[in-house]
Amino acid sequence: MDGADAIDVARASRGSFSADPQSIFETWAEFGIWAKTGLTDAPREPVNFGELQCPIPAPRQLFAVGLNYGAHNTEVKRSSSAAPVVFTKFVSSISGPYDPVHHPGGDLDWEAELVVVIGRGGHHISVDAAWGHVAGLTVGQDFSERVSQRTGSPPQWSLAKSYAGFAPLGPVIVTPDEFARPDDLAIQARVNGEIVQSARTSELIFGVPELISYLSEIVTLLPGDVIFTGTPAGTGIGMNPQRFLMAGDVVETTIEGIGSLRNVVTADSELV
Amino acid sequence: MDGADAIDVARASRGSFSADPQSIFETWAEFGIWAKTGLTDAPREPVNFGELQCPIPAPRQLFAVGLNYGAHNTEVKRSSSAAPVVFTKFVSSISGPYDPVHHPGGDLDWEAELVVVIGRGGHHISVDAAWGHVAGLTVGQDFSERVSQRTGSPPQWSLAKSYAGFAPLGPVIVTPDEFARPDDLAIQARVNGEIVQSARTSELIFGVPELISYLSEIVTLLPGDVIFTGTPAGTGIGMNPQRFLMAGDVVETTIEGIGSLRNVVTADSELV
Repeated sequence: MDGADAIDVARASRGSFSADPQSIFETWAEFGIWAKTGLTDAPREPVNFGELQCPIPAPRQLFAVGLNYGAHNTEVKRSSSAAPVVFTKFVSSISGPYDPVHHPGGDLDWEAELVVVIGRGGHHISVDAAWGHVAGLTVGQDFSERVSQRTGSPPQWSLAKSYAGFAPLGPVIVTPDEFARPDDLAIQARVNGEIVQSARTSELIFGVPELISYLSEIVTLLPGDVIFTGTPAGTGIGMNPQRFLMAGDVVETTIEGIGSLRNVVTADSELV
Repeated sequence: MDGADAIDVARASRGSFSADPQSIFETWAEFGIWAKTGLTDAPREPVNFGELQCPIPAPRQLFAVGLNYGAHNTEVKRSSSAAPVVFTKFVSSISGPYDPVHHPGGDLDWEAELVVVIGRGGHHISVDAAWGHVAGLTVGQDFSERVSQRTGSPPQWSLAKSYAGFAPLGPVIVTPDEFARPDDLAIQARVNGEIVQSARTSELIFGVPELISYLSEIVTLLPGDVIFTGTPAGTGIGMNPQRFLMAGDVVETTIEGIGSLRNVVTADSELV
Protein backbone atom coordinates (compact mmCIF):
# COMPACT_ATOMS: atom_id res chain seq x y z
CA MET A 1 0.00 0.00 0.00
CA ASP A 2 3.04 2.28 -0.18
CA GLY A 3 2.48 5.38 -2.26
CA ALA A 4 -1.20 5.81 -1.41
CA ASP A 5 -2.44 9.31 -0.89
CA ALA A 6 -3.25 10.48 2.62
CA ILE A 7 -5.11 13.45 3.96
CA ASP A 8 -3.88 15.40 6.97
CA VAL A 9 -7.04 15.44 9.07
CA ALA A 10 -6.15 18.39 11.27
CA ARG A 11 -5.31 20.52 8.22
CA ALA A 12 -8.11 19.42 5.88
CA SER A 13 -10.82 19.77 8.52
CA ARG A 14 -9.59 23.25 9.42
CA GLY A 15 -9.06 22.09 12.97
CA SER A 16 -12.48 20.57 13.61
CA PHE A 17 -10.76 17.25 14.27
CA SER A 18 -7.56 16.52 16.11
CA ALA A 19 -4.63 14.81 14.47
CA ASP A 20 -4.02 13.03 17.78
CA PRO A 21 -4.84 9.41 16.95
CA GLN A 22 -6.39 8.60 20.32
CA SER A 23 -8.64 11.64 20.75
CA ILE A 24 -10.18 11.32 17.27
CA PHE A 25 -12.43 8.53 18.60
CA GLU A 26 -14.19 11.02 20.88
CA THR A 27 -15.82 12.58 17.82
CA TRP A 28 -15.90 9.50 15.62
CA ALA A 29 -19.45 9.88 14.30
CA GLU A 30 -18.93 13.51 13.26
CA PHE A 31 -15.56 12.57 11.81
CA GLY A 32 -17.15 9.82 9.73
CA ILE A 33 -19.72 12.20 8.28
CA TRP A 34 -17.06 14.75 7.45
CA ALA A 35 -14.82 12.09 5.92
CA LYS A 36 -17.63 11.04 3.57
CA THR A 37 -18.68 14.54 2.52
CA GLY A 38 -16.00 17.12 3.19
CA LEU A 39 -12.93 15.76 1.47
CA THR A 40 -13.40 16.69 -2.17
CA ASP A 41 -10.87 19.48 -2.21
CA ALA A 42 -8.61 18.27 0.62
CA PRO A 43 -4.90 18.29 -0.22
CA ARG A 44 -3.43 14.79 -0.53
CA GLU A 45 0.10 13.69 0.26
CA PRO A 46 1.88 10.41 -0.47
CA VAL A 47 2.22 8.25 2.61
CA ASN A 48 5.02 5.85 3.43
CA PHE A 49 3.24 2.99 5.13
CA GLY A 50 6.47 1.76 6.64
CA GLU A 51 6.60 4.85 8.83
CA LEU A 52 3.14 4.41 10.34
CA GLN A 53 2.97 4.25 14.11
CA CYS A 54 0.34 2.77 16.41
CA PRO A 55 -3.11 4.12 15.44
CA ILE A 56 -4.56 3.57 18.96
CA PRO A 57 -1.65 4.36 21.28
CA ALA A 58 -3.52 4.95 24.53
CA PRO A 59 -6.89 3.23 24.89
CA ARG A 60 -8.48 3.79 28.30
CA GLN A 61 -9.62 0.18 28.35
CA LEU A 62 -8.07 -2.78 26.56
CA PHE A 63 -10.04 -6.01 26.67
CA ALA A 64 -8.45 -9.24 25.47
CA VAL A 65 -10.40 -12.43 24.89
CA GLY A 66 -8.95 -15.91 25.28
CA LEU A 67 -10.00 -19.32 23.95
CA ASN A 68 -12.22 -17.87 21.22
CA TYR A 69 -11.46 -20.22 18.28
CA GLY A 70 -12.47 -23.89 18.68
CA ALA A 71 -9.39 -25.27 16.90
CA HIS A 72 -7.07 -23.21 19.14
CA ASN A 73 -8.87 -24.40 22.26
CA THR A 74 -8.32 -27.98 21.07
CA GLU A 75 -4.60 -27.46 20.47
CA VAL A 76 -4.13 -26.05 23.99
CA LYS A 77 -6.37 -28.80 25.42
CA ARG A 78 -9.00 -26.43 26.78
CA SER A 79 -12.73 -26.69 26.44
CA SER A 80 -14.62 -23.72 25.06
CA SER A 81 -16.22 -21.44 27.61
CA ALA A 82 -19.91 -20.56 27.93
CA ALA A 83 -18.96 -16.89 28.14
CA PRO A 84 -15.98 -14.95 26.76
CA VAL A 85 -12.81 -15.28 28.85
CA VAL A 86 -11.59 -11.71 29.36
CA PHE A 87 -8.26 -10.34 30.57
CA THR A 88 -6.25 -7.20 29.76
CA LYS A 89 -2.95 -6.26 28.19
CA PHE A 90 -1.67 -3.26 30.17
CA VAL A 91 -1.22 -0.27 27.85
CA SER A 92 2.54 0.07 28.33
CA SER A 93 2.75 -3.10 26.17
CA ILE A 94 1.24 -1.32 23.14
CA SER A 95 3.60 -0.67 20.23
CA GLY A 96 3.57 0.26 16.57
CA PRO A 97 3.00 -2.08 13.63
CA TYR A 98 6.70 -2.42 12.78
CA ASP A 99 8.27 -2.10 16.23
CA PRO A 100 10.62 -4.79 17.51
CA VAL A 101 9.54 -6.95 20.43
CA HIS A 102 12.07 -7.61 23.18
CA HIS A 103 12.46 -11.26 24.21
CA PRO A 104 11.83 -11.23 27.98
CA GLY A 105 13.13 -14.74 28.56
CA GLY A 106 10.85 -17.73 29.04
CA ASP A 107 8.71 -19.08 26.20
CA LEU A 108 7.76 -16.28 23.80
CA ASP A 109 4.78 -17.16 21.60
CA TRP A 110 2.70 -15.48 18.87
CA GLU A 111 -1.08 -14.99 18.67
CA ALA A 112 -2.51 -13.29 15.57
CA GLU A 113 -5.72 -11.44 16.47
CA LEU A 114 -8.45 -9.35 14.92
CA VAL A 115 -8.73 -6.17 17.01
CA VAL A 116 -11.85 -4.02 17.36
CA VAL A 117 -11.63 -0.30 18.07
CA ILE A 118 -14.70 1.25 19.71
CA GLY A 119 -16.02 4.49 18.21
CA ARG A 120 -19.25 5.19 20.06
CA GLY A 121 -19.12 4.09 23.68
CA GLY A 122 -22.02 2.67 25.60
CA HIS A 123 -23.50 0.44 28.27
CA HIS A 124 -25.94 -2.44 27.63
CA ILE A 125 -25.32 -2.51 23.86
CA SER A 126 -27.40 -5.12 22.04
CA VAL A 127 -25.86 -7.60 19.60
CA ASP A 128 -27.88 -6.00 16.80
CA ALA A 129 -26.60 -2.51 17.60
CA ALA A 130 -22.98 -3.53 18.23
CA TRP A 131 -21.45 -2.87 14.79
CA GLY A 132 -22.71 0.72 15.07
CA HIS A 133 -20.35 1.20 18.02
CA VAL A 134 -17.26 0.06 16.08
CA ALA A 135 -14.86 2.70 14.77
CA GLY A 136 -12.99 0.08 12.81
CA LEU A 137 -10.95 -3.08 12.72
CA THR A 138 -7.20 -3.44 12.91
CA VAL A 139 -4.53 -6.12 13.26
CA GLY A 140 -3.08 -7.07 16.63
CA GLN A 141 -0.42 -9.49 17.77
CA ASP A 142 -1.00 -10.82 21.29
CA PHE A 143 2.59 -11.79 22.16
CA SER A 144 2.53 -14.07 25.20
CA GLU A 145 5.21 -15.39 27.55
CA ARG A 146 3.98 -18.87 28.40
CA VAL A 147 6.04 -19.59 31.54
CA SER A 148 4.72 -16.59 33.50
CA GLN A 149 1.27 -17.08 31.95
CA ARG A 150 0.97 -20.49 33.63
CA THR A 151 2.33 -19.19 36.95
CA GLY A 152 0.05 -18.57 39.89
CA SER A 153 -3.56 -19.31 40.68
CA PRO A 154 -5.50 -17.96 38.90
CA PRO A 155 -2.91 -18.01 36.08
CA GLN A 156 -1.39 -14.65 35.21
CA TRP A 157 -2.67 -14.01 31.72
CA SER A 158 -2.75 -10.21 31.91
CA LEU A 159 0.82 -9.72 33.14
CA ALA A 160 2.31 -12.47 30.95
CA LYS A 161 0.88 -10.71 27.90
CA SER A 162 2.02 -7.21 28.92
CA TYR A 163 5.79 -7.11 28.49
CA ALA A 164 7.10 -4.17 26.46
CA GLY A 165 6.21 -4.49 22.79
CA PHE A 166 3.76 -7.36 23.38
CA ALA A 167 0.79 -5.53 21.82
CA PRO A 168 1.70 -4.19 18.36
CA LEU A 169 -1.34 -2.72 16.60
CA GLY A 170 -2.01 -1.37 13.14
CA PRO A 171 -0.96 -0.55 10.53
CA VAL A 172 -4.32 1.17 9.92
CA ILE A 173 -7.88 1.09 11.23
CA VAL A 174 -10.40 0.13 8.56
CA THR A 175 -14.03 1.17 9.02
CA PRO A 176 -16.58 -1.68 8.91
CA ASP A 177 -18.25 -0.34 5.75
CA GLU A 178 -15.03 -0.97 3.80
CA PHE A 179 -15.51 -4.75 4.10
CA ALA A 180 -17.99 -6.81 2.11
CA ARG A 181 -18.25 -9.08 5.18
CA PRO A 182 -16.50 -7.63 8.24
CA ASP A 183 -17.21 -10.83 10.15
CA ASP A 184 -15.39 -13.15 7.74
CA LEU A 185 -11.79 -12.08 7.13
CA ALA A 186 -8.72 -14.23 6.49
CA ILE A 187 -6.25 -14.00 9.39
CA GLN A 188 -2.70 -15.29 9.25
CA ALA A 189 0.59 -15.31 11.14
CA ARG A 190 3.97 -16.10 9.61
CA VAL A 191 7.25 -16.72 11.42
CA ASN A 192 10.30 -16.10 9.22
CA GLY A 193 8.00 -16.38 6.21
CA GLU A 194 6.44 -19.72 7.20
CA ILE A 195 2.68 -19.68 7.69
CA VAL A 196 1.95 -20.83 11.25
CA GLN A 197 -1.62 -19.58 11.73
CA SER A 198 -4.26 -19.38 9.00
CA ALA A 199 -7.97 -19.09 9.69
CA ARG A 200 -11.02 -16.91 9.11
CA THR A 201 -12.59 -14.57 11.66
CA SER A 202 -15.95 -16.24 10.93
CA GLU A 203 -14.59 -19.07 13.10
CA LEU A 204 -14.69 -16.86 16.22
CA ILE A 205 -16.82 -18.52 18.90
CA PHE A 206 -17.91 -15.10 20.17
CA GLY A 207 -17.94 -12.72 17.21
CA VAL A 208 -17.46 -8.96 17.31
CA PRO A 209 -21.14 -8.13 18.07
CA GLU A 210 -21.36 -10.76 20.81
CA LEU A 211 -18.15 -9.53 22.48
CA ILE A 212 -19.27 -5.90 22.45
CA SER A 213 -22.68 -6.81 23.86
CA TYR A 214 -21.21 -9.08 26.55
CA LEU A 215 -18.58 -6.59 27.73
CA SER A 216 -21.03 -3.69 27.73
CA GLU A 217 -23.38 -5.59 30.05
CA ILE A 218 -20.67 -5.22 32.72
CA VAL A 219 -18.53 -2.20 31.88
CA THR A 220 -19.15 1.02 30.03
CA LEU A 221 -17.28 0.93 26.73
CA LEU A 222 -15.48 4.19 25.95
CA PRO A 223 -14.49 5.74 22.60
CA GLY A 224 -11.07 4.41 21.59
CA ASP A 225 -11.33 1.24 23.70
CA VAL A 226 -9.72 -1.82 22.14
CA ILE A 227 -10.82 -5.47 22.05
CA PHE A 228 -8.33 -8.22 21.13
CA THR A 229 -10.72 -10.93 19.96
CA GLY A 230 -8.63 -14.09 20.44
CA THR A 231 -6.29 -16.18 18.34
CA PRO A 232 -6.85 -19.13 15.99
CA ALA A 233 -4.98 -22.47 16.03
CA GLY A 234 -1.29 -22.58 15.19
CA THR A 235 0.35 -21.05 18.26
CA GLY A 236 3.78 -22.30 19.30
CA ILE A 237 2.50 -23.77 22.56
CA GLY A 238 -0.04 -25.83 20.61
CA MET A 239 2.58 -27.41 18.31
CA ASN A 240 4.13 -30.82 18.81
CA PRO A 241 6.95 -30.36 19.61
CA GLN A 242 6.29 -26.90 21.01
CA ARG A 243 8.07 -24.05 19.27
CA PHE A 244 8.85 -20.62 20.69
CA LEU A 245 10.38 -17.43 19.33
CA MET A 246 14.07 -16.54 19.50
CA ALA A 247 15.96 -13.34 18.92
CA GLY A 248 16.09 -12.61 15.20
CA ASP A 249 12.76 -14.24 14.39
CA VAL A 250 10.37 -12.15 12.30
CA VAL A 251 6.64 -12.35 13.07
CA GLU A 252 4.21 -11.10 10.43
CA THR A 253 0.51 -10.86 11.24
CA THR A 254 -1.95 -10.23 8.41
CA ILE A 255 -5.69 -9.71 8.15
CA GLU A 256 -7.49 -9.52 4.81
CA GLY A 257 -8.47 -5.98 3.89
CA ILE A 258 -6.45 -4.35 6.68
CA GLY A 259 -2.75 -5.10 6.27
CA SER A 260 0.19 -6.59 8.11
CA LEU A 261 2.22 -6.09 11.26
CA ARG A 262 5.90 -7.00 11.07
CA ASN A 263 7.73 -7.40 14.37
CA VAL A 264 11.30 -8.58 14.81
CA VAL A 265 12.21 -10.35 18.04
CA THR A 266 15.23 -8.78 19.66
CA ALA A 267 17.32 -9.67 22.70
CA ASP A 268 18.69 -6.15 22.78
CA SER A 269 18.07 -4.90 26.32
CA GLU A 270 18.61 -1.37 25.04
CA LEU A 271 15.10 -1.48 23.64
CA VAL A 272 13.38 -1.80 26.99
CA MET B 1 -11.57 16.98 58.20
CA ASP B 2 -14.33 19.35 57.08
CA GLY B 3 -13.34 23.00 57.23
CA ALA B 4 -9.67 22.50 56.41
CA ASP B 5 -8.04 25.05 54.16
CA ALA B 6 -7.19 24.10 50.60
CA ILE B 7 -5.04 25.71 47.97
CA ASP B 8 -6.10 25.95 44.35
CA VAL B 9 -3.04 24.53 42.64
CA ALA B 10 -3.64 25.99 39.21
CA ARG B 11 -4.13 29.48 40.68
CA ALA B 12 -1.41 29.42 43.35
CA SER B 13 1.25 28.05 41.01
CA ARG B 14 0.41 30.68 38.38
CA GLY B 15 -0.36 27.92 35.93
CA SER B 16 2.83 25.89 36.31
CA PHE B 17 0.72 22.96 37.41
CA SER B 18 -2.61 21.76 36.11
CA ALA B 19 -5.68 21.52 38.29
CA ASP B 20 -6.58 18.36 36.35
CA PRO B 21 -6.16 15.63 38.95
CA GLN B 22 -4.84 13.02 36.55
CA SER B 23 -2.25 15.10 34.69
CA ILE B 24 -0.65 16.44 37.89
CA PHE B 25 1.21 13.12 38.26
CA GLU B 26 3.18 13.85 35.07
CA THR B 27 5.09 16.55 36.94
CA TRP B 28 4.87 15.05 40.41
CA ALA B 29 8.48 15.64 41.46
CA GLU B 30 8.43 19.32 40.47
CA PHE B 31 5.00 19.66 42.08
CA GLY B 32 6.33 18.22 45.34
CA ILE B 33 9.20 20.70 45.45
CA TRP B 34 6.88 23.61 44.73
CA ALA B 35 4.38 22.39 47.35
CA LYS B 36 7.12 22.39 49.99
CA THR B 37 8.60 25.78 49.12
CA GLY B 38 6.21 27.91 47.10
CA LEU B 39 3.07 28.01 49.19
CA THR B 40 3.76 30.63 51.85
CA ASP B 41 1.58 33.32 50.34
CA ALA B 42 -0.87 31.11 48.47
CA PRO B 43 -4.52 32.00 49.02
CA ARG B 44 -6.39 29.39 51.06
CA GLU B 45 -10.03 28.46 50.83
CA PRO B 46 -12.18 26.28 53.09
CA VAL B 47 -12.86 22.88 51.58
CA ASN B 48 -15.94 20.76 52.03
CA PHE B 49 -14.56 17.23 52.12
CA GLY B 50 -17.98 15.81 51.34
CA GLU B 51 -17.78 17.32 47.88
CA LEU B 52 -14.45 15.75 46.92
CA GLN B 53 -14.41 13.66 43.80
CA CYS B 54 -12.05 10.90 42.68
CA PRO B 55 -8.43 12.12 42.92
CA ILE B 56 -7.19 9.68 40.24
CA PRO B 57 -10.06 9.51 37.75
CA ALA B 58 -8.24 8.09 34.72
CA PRO B 59 -5.11 6.04 35.43
CA ARG B 60 -3.59 4.58 32.28
CA GLN B 61 -2.89 1.35 34.12
CA LEU B 62 -4.73 -0.05 37.14
CA PHE B 63 -3.16 -3.09 38.77
CA ALA B 64 -5.08 -5.01 41.41
CA VAL B 65 -3.52 -7.65 43.61
CA GLY B 66 -5.39 -10.64 45.02
CA LEU B 67 -4.73 -12.97 47.95
CA ASN B 68 -2.24 -10.61 49.61
CA TYR B 69 -3.18 -11.01 53.31
CA GLY B 70 -2.64 -14.44 54.89
CA ALA B 71 -5.79 -14.33 57.02
CA HIS B 72 -7.93 -13.45 53.98
CA ASN B 73 -6.40 -16.27 51.97
CA THR B 74 -7.33 -18.63 54.81
CA GLU B 75 -10.95 -17.44 54.93
CA VAL B 76 -11.37 -18.00 51.19
CA LYS B 77 -9.54 -21.34 51.46
CA ARG B 78 -6.67 -20.34 49.16
CA SER B 79 -2.98 -20.84 49.69
CA SER B 80 -0.71 -17.84 49.42
CA SER B 81 1.07 -17.40 46.11
CA ALA B 82 4.83 -17.28 45.52
CA ALA B 83 4.33 -14.15 43.41
CA PRO B 84 1.64 -11.44 43.50
CA VAL B 85 -1.60 -12.41 41.77
CA VAL B 86 -2.40 -9.50 39.46
CA PHE B 87 -5.56 -8.55 37.61
CA THR B 88 -7.16 -5.24 36.61
CA LYS B 89 -10.28 -3.24 37.36
CA PHE B 90 -11.27 -1.55 34.08
CA VAL B 91 -11.27 2.23 34.50
CA SER B 92 -14.97 2.73 33.79
CA SER B 93 -15.48 1.19 37.26
CA ILE B 94 -13.67 4.08 39.00
CA SER B 95 -15.84 6.41 41.06
CA GLY B 96 -15.58 9.06 43.72
CA PRO B 97 -15.20 8.53 47.47
CA TYR B 98 -18.88 9.13 48.25
CA ASP B 99 -20.50 7.81 45.07
CA PRO B 100 -23.20 5.15 45.29
CA VAL B 101 -22.49 1.68 43.94
CA HIS B 102 -25.17 0.01 41.86
CA HIS B 103 -26.03 -3.57 42.82
CA PRO B 104 -25.53 -5.54 39.61
CA GLY B 105 -27.27 -8.69 40.87
CA GLY B 106 -25.39 -11.74 42.07
CA ASP B 107 -23.33 -11.68 45.27
CA LEU B 108 -21.96 -8.18 45.91
CA ASP B 109 -19.04 -8.15 48.36
CA TRP B 110 -16.70 -5.58 49.90
CA GLU B 111 -12.87 -5.50 49.94
CA ALA B 112 -11.14 -2.62 51.77
CA GLU B 113 -7.76 -1.91 50.16
CA LEU B 114 -4.75 0.32 50.50
CA VAL B 115 -4.16 1.91 47.08
CA VAL B 116 -0.82 3.17 45.78
CA VAL B 117 -0.61 6.00 43.24
CA ILE B 118 2.56 6.10 41.14
CA GLY B 119 4.32 9.46 40.80
CA ARG B 120 7.54 8.73 38.95
CA GLY B 121 7.15 5.93 36.42
CA GLY B 122 9.81 3.39 35.61
CA HIS B 123 10.92 -0.07 34.52
CA HIS B 124 13.01 -2.47 36.64
CA ILE B 125 12.52 -0.51 39.89
CA SER B 126 14.34 -2.03 42.86
CA VAL B 127 12.59 -2.69 46.17
CA ASP B 128 14.86 -0.13 47.83
CA ALA B 129 14.00 2.57 45.30
CA ALA B 130 10.27 1.82 45.17
CA TRP B 131 8.92 4.33 47.71
CA GLY B 132 10.61 7.07 45.66
CA HIS B 133 8.22 6.25 42.81
CA VAL B 134 5.09 6.64 44.95
CA ALA B 135 3.07 9.85 44.63
CA GLY B 136 0.96 8.88 47.59
CA LEU B 137 -1.44 6.48 49.23
CA THR B 138 -5.21 6.52 49.12
CA VAL B 139 -8.18 4.39 50.13
CA GLY B 140 -9.86 2.02 47.68
CA GLN B 141 -12.81 -0.29 47.85
CA ASP B 142 -12.54 -3.30 45.54
CA PHE B 143 -16.24 -4.13 45.18
CA SER B 144 -16.56 -7.65 43.74
CA GLU B 145 -19.45 -9.65 42.32
CA ARG B 146 -18.69 -13.21 43.44
CA VAL B 147 -20.92 -15.17 41.05
CA SER B 148 -19.32 -13.80 37.87
CA GLN B 149 -15.89 -13.84 39.56
CA ARG B 150 -16.08 -17.63 39.89
CA THR B 151 -17.38 -18.08 36.33
CA GLY B 152 -15.14 -19.35 33.57
CA SER B 153 -11.67 -20.80 33.39
CA PRO B 154 -9.51 -18.99 34.30
CA PRO B 155 -12.01 -17.26 36.63
CA GLN B 156 -13.09 -13.77 35.61
CA TRP B 157 -11.62 -11.58 38.32
CA SER B 158 -11.07 -8.46 36.20
CA LEU B 159 -14.60 -8.26 34.77
CA ALA B 160 -16.33 -9.28 38.01
CA LYS B 161 -14.62 -6.38 39.76
CA SER B 162 -15.34 -3.80 37.05
CA TYR B 163 -19.06 -3.05 37.24
CA ALA B 164 -19.95 0.65 37.41
CA GLY B 165 -18.97 2.15 40.76
CA PHE B 166 -16.90 -0.88 41.82
CA ALA B 167 -13.68 1.13 42.31
CA PRO B 168 -14.30 4.15 44.54
CA LEU B 169 -11.06 5.95 45.40
CA GLY B 170 -10.10 8.80 47.70
CA PRO B 171 -11.00 10.97 49.48
CA VAL B 172 -7.42 12.32 49.21
CA ILE B 173 -3.94 11.16 48.24
CA VAL B 174 -1.48 11.40 51.12
CA THR B 175 2.24 11.61 50.31
CA PRO B 176 4.44 8.94 51.96
CA ASP B 177 6.36 11.51 54.04
CA GLU B 178 3.15 12.37 55.92
CA PHE B 179 3.17 8.95 57.62
CA ALA B 180 5.45 7.92 60.47
CA ARG B 181 5.32 4.39 59.03
CA PRO B 182 3.66 4.27 55.61
CA ASP B 183 3.93 0.46 55.63
CA ASP B 184 1.92 -0.02 58.83
CA LEU B 185 -1.51 1.62 58.68
CA ALA B 186 -4.78 0.50 60.24
CA ILE B 187 -7.31 -0.50 57.56
CA GLN B 188 -10.97 -1.10 58.22
CA ALA B 189 -14.31 -1.70 56.51
CA ARG B 190 -17.71 -1.18 58.11
CA VAL B 191 -21.10 -2.23 56.78
CA ASN B 192 -23.98 -0.22 58.24
CA GLY B 193 -21.62 0.81 61.02
CA GLU B 194 -20.52 -2.71 61.97
CA ILE B 195 -16.80 -3.38 61.63
CA VAL B 196 -16.33 -6.27 59.20
CA GLN B 197 -12.66 -5.89 58.27
CA SER B 198 -9.93 -4.63 60.59
CA ALA B 199 -6.22 -5.19 59.97
CA ARG B 200 -2.93 -3.39 59.47
CA THR B 201 -1.16 -2.92 56.12
CA SER B 202 1.99 -4.36 57.71
CA GLU B 203 0.23 -7.73 57.27
CA LEU B 204 0.49 -7.46 53.46
CA ILE B 205 2.32 -10.53 52.09
CA PHE B 206 3.78 -8.40 49.28
CA GLY B 207 4.19 -4.86 50.60
CA VAL B 208 4.17 -1.66 48.56
CA PRO B 209 7.88 -1.79 47.59
CA GLU B 210 7.70 -5.46 46.61
CA LEU B 211 4.60 -4.89 44.46
CA ILE B 212 6.16 -1.94 42.64
CA SER B 213 9.38 -3.84 42.02
CA TYR B 214 7.57 -6.98 40.84
CA LEU B 215 5.22 -5.15 38.46
CA SER B 216 8.00 -3.00 37.04
CA GLU B 217 10.01 -6.08 36.10
CA ILE B 218 7.28 -6.82 33.55
CA VAL B 219 5.54 -3.57 32.65
CA THR B 220 6.61 0.05 32.58
CA LEU B 221 4.86 1.90 35.39
CA LEU B 222 3.47 5.28 34.30
CA PRO B 223 2.80 8.42 36.35
CA GLY B 224 -0.71 8.25 37.77
CA ASP B 225 -0.91 4.43 37.62
CA VAL B 226 -2.81 2.84 40.47
CA ILE B 227 -2.16 -0.34 42.47
CA PHE B 228 -4.93 -1.90 44.59
CA THR B 229 -2.84 -3.90 47.07
CA GLY B 230 -5.31 -6.57 48.21
CA THR B 231 -7.83 -6.98 51.01
CA PRO B 232 -7.55 -8.35 54.56
CA ALA B 233 -9.80 -10.95 56.19
CA GLY B 234 -13.45 -10.17 56.82
CA THR B 235 -14.99 -10.25 53.35
CA GLY B 236 -18.57 -11.43 53.01
CA ILE B 237 -17.61 -14.52 51.01
CA GLY B 238 -15.27 -15.59 53.83
CA MET B 239 -17.97 -15.41 56.52
CA ASN B 240 -19.93 -18.38 57.81
CA PRO B 241 -22.68 -18.04 56.81
CA GLN B 242 -21.69 -15.92 53.84
CA ARG B 243 -23.06 -12.39 53.79
CA PHE B 244 -23.47 -10.13 50.78
CA LEU B 245 -24.54 -6.53 50.25
CA MET B 246 -28.09 -5.43 49.53
CA ALA B 247 -29.59 -2.17 48.30
CA GLY B 248 -29.50 0.37 51.12
CA ASP B 249 -26.36 -1.00 52.77
CA VAL B 250 -23.67 1.56 53.56
CA VAL B 251 -20.02 0.54 53.13
CA GLU B 252 -17.37 2.68 54.83
CA THR B 253 -13.70 2.02 54.13
CA THR B 254 -11.09 3.71 56.31
CA ILE B 255 -7.30 3.84 56.38
CA GLU B 256 -5.39 5.51 59.20
CA GLY B 257 -3.97 8.88 58.19
CA ILE B 258 -5.85 9.05 54.90
CA GLY B 259 -9.61 9.08 55.51
CA SER B 260 -12.77 7.22 54.61
CA LEU B 261 -14.82 6.26 51.60
CA ARG B 262 -18.57 6.02 52.10
CA ASN B 263 -20.54 4.21 49.42
CA VAL B 264 -24.25 3.41 49.53
CA VAL B 265 -25.47 0.34 47.64
CA THR B 266 -28.34 1.20 45.35
CA ALA B 267 -30.61 -0.85 43.17
CA ASP B 268 -31.60 2.24 41.22
CA SER B 269 -30.95 1.39 37.60
CA GLU B 270 -31.02 5.11 36.81
CA LEU B 271 -27.50 5.32 38.19
CA VAL B 272 -25.92 3.14 35.54
